[in-house]
Amino acid sequence: MNKHIPQSEFKTPEVTTGPLPSSRKTYVAGDQYKDIRVPVREIDLHPSANEPPLPVYDTSGPYTDPEVSIDVEKGLARTRTAWIKKRAGEHGNNIEEYDGREVKPEDNGGASGKHLAREFPVRNRPLRGTGEGPVTQYEFAKAGVVTAEMEFVAIRENLGRKQMLEDAERRVAEGESFGAEIPPFITPEFVRSEIARGRAIIPSNINHPELEPQIIGRNFLVKINANIGNSAVASSVEEEVDKMVWATRWGADNVMDLSTGRNIHNTREWIIRNSPVPIGTVPIYQALEKVNGVAEDLSWEVYRDTLIEQAEQGVDYFTIHAGVRLPFIHLTADRVTGIVSRGGSIMAKWCLAHHRESFLYTHFEEICEIMRRYDVSFSLGDGLRPGSVADANDKAQFAELETLGELTKIAWDHGCQVMIEGPGHVPMHKIKVNMDKQLKTCGEAPFYTLGPLTTDIAPGYDHITSGIGAAMIGWFGTAMLCYVTPKEHLGLPDRDDVKVGVVTYKLAAHAADLAKGHPAAQLRDDALSRARFEFRWEDQFNLSLDPETARDFHDQTLPKEAHKVAHFCSMCGPKFCSMKITAEVRDYAAGMSDNEKKDLEKLSEQGMAEMSEKYKEMGSELYLEEEAVTKANKGL
Amino acid sequence: MNKHIPQSEFKTPEVTTGPLPSSRKTYVAGDQYKDIRVPVREIDLHPSANEPPLPVYDTSGPYTDPEVSIDVEKGLARTRTAWIKKRAGEHGNNIEEYDGREVKPEDNGGASGKHLAREFPVRNRPLRGTGEGPVTQYEFAKAGVVTAEMEFVAIRENLGRKQMLEDAERRVAEGESFGAEIPPFITPEFVRSEIARGRAIIPSNINHPELEPQIIGRNFLVKINANIGNSAVASSVEEEVDKMVWATRWGADNVMDLSTGRNIHNTREWIIRNSPVPIGTVPIYQALEKVNGVAEDLSWEVYRDTLIEQAEQGVDYFTIHAGVRLPFIHLTADRVTGIVSRGGSIMAKWCLAHHRESFLYTHFEEICEIMRRYDVSFSLGDGLRPGSVADANDKAQFAELETLGELTKIAWDHGCQVMIEGPGHVPMHKIKVNMDKQLKTCGEAPFYTLGPLTTDIAPGYDHITSGIGAAMIGWFGTAMLCYVTPKEHLGLPDRDDVKVGVVTYKLAAHAADLAKGHPAAQLRDDALSRARFEFRWEDQFNLSLDPETARDFHDQTLPKEAHKVAHFCSMCGPKFCSMKITAEVRDYAAGMSDNEKKDLEKLSEQGMAEMSEKYKEMGSELYLEEEAVTKANKGL
Repeated sequence: MNKHIPQSEFKTPEVTTGPLPSSRKTYVAGDQYKDIRVPVREIDLHPSANEPPLPVYDTSGPYTDPEVSIDVEKGLARTRTAWIKKRAGEHGNNIEEYDGREVKPEDNGGASGKHLAREFPVRNRPLRGTGEGPVTQYEFAKAGVVTAEMEFVAIRENLGRKQMLEDAERRVAEGESFGAEIPPFITPEFVRSEIARGRAIIPSNINHPELEPQIIGRNFLVKINANIGNSAVASSVEEEVDKMVWATRWGADNVMDLSTGRNIHNTREWIIRNSPVPIGTVPIYQALEKVNGVAEDLSWEVYRDTLIEQAEQGVDYFTIHAGVRLPFIHLTADRVTGIVSRGGSIMAKWCLAHHRESFLYTHFEEICEIMRRYDVSFSLGDGLRPGSVADANDKAQFAELETLGELTKIAWDHGCQVMIEGPGHVPMHKIKVNMDKQLKTCGEAPFYTLGPLTTDIAPGYDHITSGIGAAMIGWFGTAMLCYVTPKEHLGLPDRDDVKVGVVTYKLAAHAADLAKGHPAAQLRDDALSRARFEFRWEDQFNLSLDPETARDFHDQTLPKEAHKVAHFCSMCGPKFCSMKITAEVRDYAAGMSDNEKKDLEKLSEQGMAEMSEKYKEMGSELYLEEEAVTKANKGL
Repeated sequence: MNKHIPQSEFKTPEVTTGPLPSSRKTYVAGDQYKDIRVPVREIDLHPSANEPPLPVYDTSGPYTDPEVSIDVEKGLARTRTAWIKKRAGEHGNNIEEYDGREVKPEDNGGASGKHLAREFPVRNRPLRGTGEGPVTQYEFAKAGVVTAEMEFVAIRENLGRKQMLEDAERRVAEGESFGAEIPPFITPEFVRSEIARGRAIIPSNINHPELEPQIIGRNFLVKINANIGNSAVASSVEEEVDKMVWATRWGADNVMDLSTGRNIHNTREWIIRNSPVPIGTVPIYQALEKVNGVAEDLSWEVYRDTLIEQAEQGVDYFTIHAGVRLPFIHLTADRVTGIVSRGGSIMAKWCLAHHRESFLYTHFEEICEIMRRYDVSFSLGDGLRPGSVADANDKAQFAELETLGELTKIAWDHGCQVMIEGPGHVPMHKIKVNMDKQLKTCGEAPFYTLGPLTTDIAPGYDHITSGIGAAMIGWFGTAMLCYVTPKEHLGLPDRDDVKVGVVTYKLAAHAADLAKGHPAAQLRDDALSRARFEFRWEDQFNLSLDPETARDFHDQTLPKEAHKVAHFCSMCGPKFCSMKITAEVRDYAAGMSDNEKKDLEKLSEQGMAEMSEKYKEMGSELYLEEEAVTKANKGL
């Protein structure tokens, strides 16, 4: 074990803790697995609302639970280890604990002395499958076993739905699902069947027992991913751990660590040990660092070793660009922006330098065997995705997608969980065909898209250009949306950018849930709309995705505390308020008899005919009248 | 004339002038109308690009022309007056200049002394049609006359298209237009025919000769509108004039002055006299102020007088909520958010208080006569639009839309230009039916929508929740998108909010143009993508919708001037850059022979089969190999 820990240079990462405004963390126990504790955030409303607290999906982990004391030096509780070991005990003792791979200097890019980030203080012996019997959620699902993780996500997905089903008066959600089939109520068995069909995954490396399981699939809530990671030119371990906690606070369901500089290994360890959400990586980034950034020096051996290194640490999903094949590379030559995926361009360079088929492709089944033993999920990378709207949906992109479809079936045959990455930059009219092709080609494996950006002309606003595409493709069936921050194409996101990116993608994912007709999605919209209509300002803030910003914006115009209960808003002022007038209209209308309503219907039909008649009678008198008024105005 | 001008209290509004980065203002003359000067902004690129300047649509007026000296106290040049008078001379001298209505104290909400905003220093005698012969663009179009305004907008819409048509190598834009028919090249005659069919309008009151004409219709570039305006609780004349100039600087095609407090008349005069874009208003707001905010005290007489007041000032389009009919009001009683349109709720209250049909509806033809004489365009208001996704597409909303369809035909019969306002809050799956219904019901009159917001849970981010809906409905055929700022539902937008709202809606409108297959839209995306791919950072900033923000974001990560020419970016650092690798890949691929390409195709087909074969040969050796590596790593 590495004992060289230069303590003085590295601070303990500071992270944000404490509940969101007016929110309580509650936990729901399982039926089959009594000891699971599924987190739910309940937002309390003002007593005048006369409404129960609104339950919302909670990705923030123990950091928002005041009952839990957080120590980043120790990491989160390793709750899932007991589940995994118990399950293994019931299925042939097919999980072994072992010493694991020794950390090597090149794992941290050769950083040493004060440049070497401090190692995470606790070292756990990794687990792996022995080779026999089920290890992955996919294998258990295929074997008909409902795991604790499956019951956990079933409960998690159901927020408010039970209440809704019991409340007969509520409208049934409508929507256009494009073939998705979200049931009125999610059962653990439904989760199992979706995973067994390959239509959903629960990324959950057996070496990341700290995570709270969540499910990615088009018959579930649309999820989002936030990218963090240091690079050769900026940021530190502390910043990245903070960003991870910060991103989950605002709703990131998954986080990818895309670090590329030095200290990749140690940074990742700190992140995983403290992460309540699945962590994804792109192993080729670290492999490239190990060969000093020279793509042609990459080899299967270096890559393979990196996979094991990261699998032992607990990475939950790997982006593997195995679809960037030698025969496809020249198809990008006429593009406006060539190959923009980092992983894709590395592999393209390797293939051309050696004039050989990609080692990710030729060794794909060996990759499957490794990932299966830790239950690392595949995120089959789209290395040939378009980098501009000009290149969208071209031959190179779709040739790769078809390959990803082939690889999906191989990965399933090996017992692995799989999702598929998608573009990129795509104008609106070309988005849906991406989704349709992916579903067909990849056997409905979950689609995981970056945006797509719907135009290239707004750097600085690419969270929005891509949020448009993300909402649409989420509606069409994408299971997870990878966020884009305002800094995309320009720089590395800071804390504020991470928050804006996460909130933008949460709202896009939610817009998609609504449009798909997710049975419980509209509960939050309706609660917030009622609060808005009734001038419950505090409730409006607290029910929003970002209560701090909502409150801050309100205070900029009407800062006084009294205005938080005022029955008017800054747009119209106290005397002239549509919400207020509407309340009066409603009272009036509520008192109408059925006969009165019928009379009005008749009026509605007659109206225009009568009006025209009347006008004709008046004839050209109008001009005269108008001039008379004009003269009167001028005092003539 | 009002001579009471308390000079000391009111400063001259300060506005932002000067060109955008690397941009030059150029003007294009007409063929038929030699003296028209159509503004075009040309963005100069770095010499290494070896590309001509990129022409872009320019809404900013003379403020970005260093050759023009700006004096807000005098207003902009009244260029169009000569066109209007000449045209009238050719068509029976049917335009008269007259003294106009005297300004009354109630026009400014009874403000006096230091509370009265200073009157605009110059008073012009208004023009109006005498009653005979064509006045409006619609009437001229119907009569087969191509006006100067029509040629102006034709030239303006054509940016880059001539070049594109001449350049045979460029790809033809594809798109899904949903029935829109954008020709390869816009001719003045095409403009005329679209206006004559009621499918497009050029809002251009004959008393707003300062404006640079632009066209709104689904066979043209999608336009955006920015709302400004003071209220009872905040802002001043200076701020509003500044916001108007600021909004047009970033791309607002139209501005609505939604002022509601005191000083409405004087604020509006300052805005119109300095506005290069059409100004819209909601006259019922001012009418309500005139009756001290008591809706039931409104009358046709007060409203009529307000219309004339504003028409004389030069307002280019009026929102008229004539579709809020007595028989529809009770249909809103079960809504989650009732009636949220200010104008709609005022009229609803009036109707119920008097239990009479709306005077806007019963006097609609008189309204037409007034508006026709000044060529004020109708913006038929959607007073019953949904205020939450829960209320989208309900009976009340669509009953009103059908009425707006009836009114459209009446307005056309009276020679008026018409557009139709639309929602509001609509989940994605319910957006398209709004567009389809509007086109059918309103005879393809231009649709002008607010957003729509696709979810209600993100106050503080409603520029984004609505930007999603705006891009989609723009694609489906909406001609103008009314912006929403981050402050929507929370407070009054300040300068920064106006900019964010405008840029968000510009990118949404552009995404719509791309998706519709607008022949020239992608030129800017492609130019920017090339700049991005070639690391021309300055060009990337300058070609973007908001060069300041793009540059600022880049500088936050890589502040040094040298990095602006660096062939790498902050995401990957100098050694590890996908763009750089791709350039190498491209060189390599370009050197391939046809035979080599064929070999690769063969490889592509064989690939997977061979790989599987190879894997089977290796069999279970893999586990052994893996363990050997693990042991080796541990130094065993």
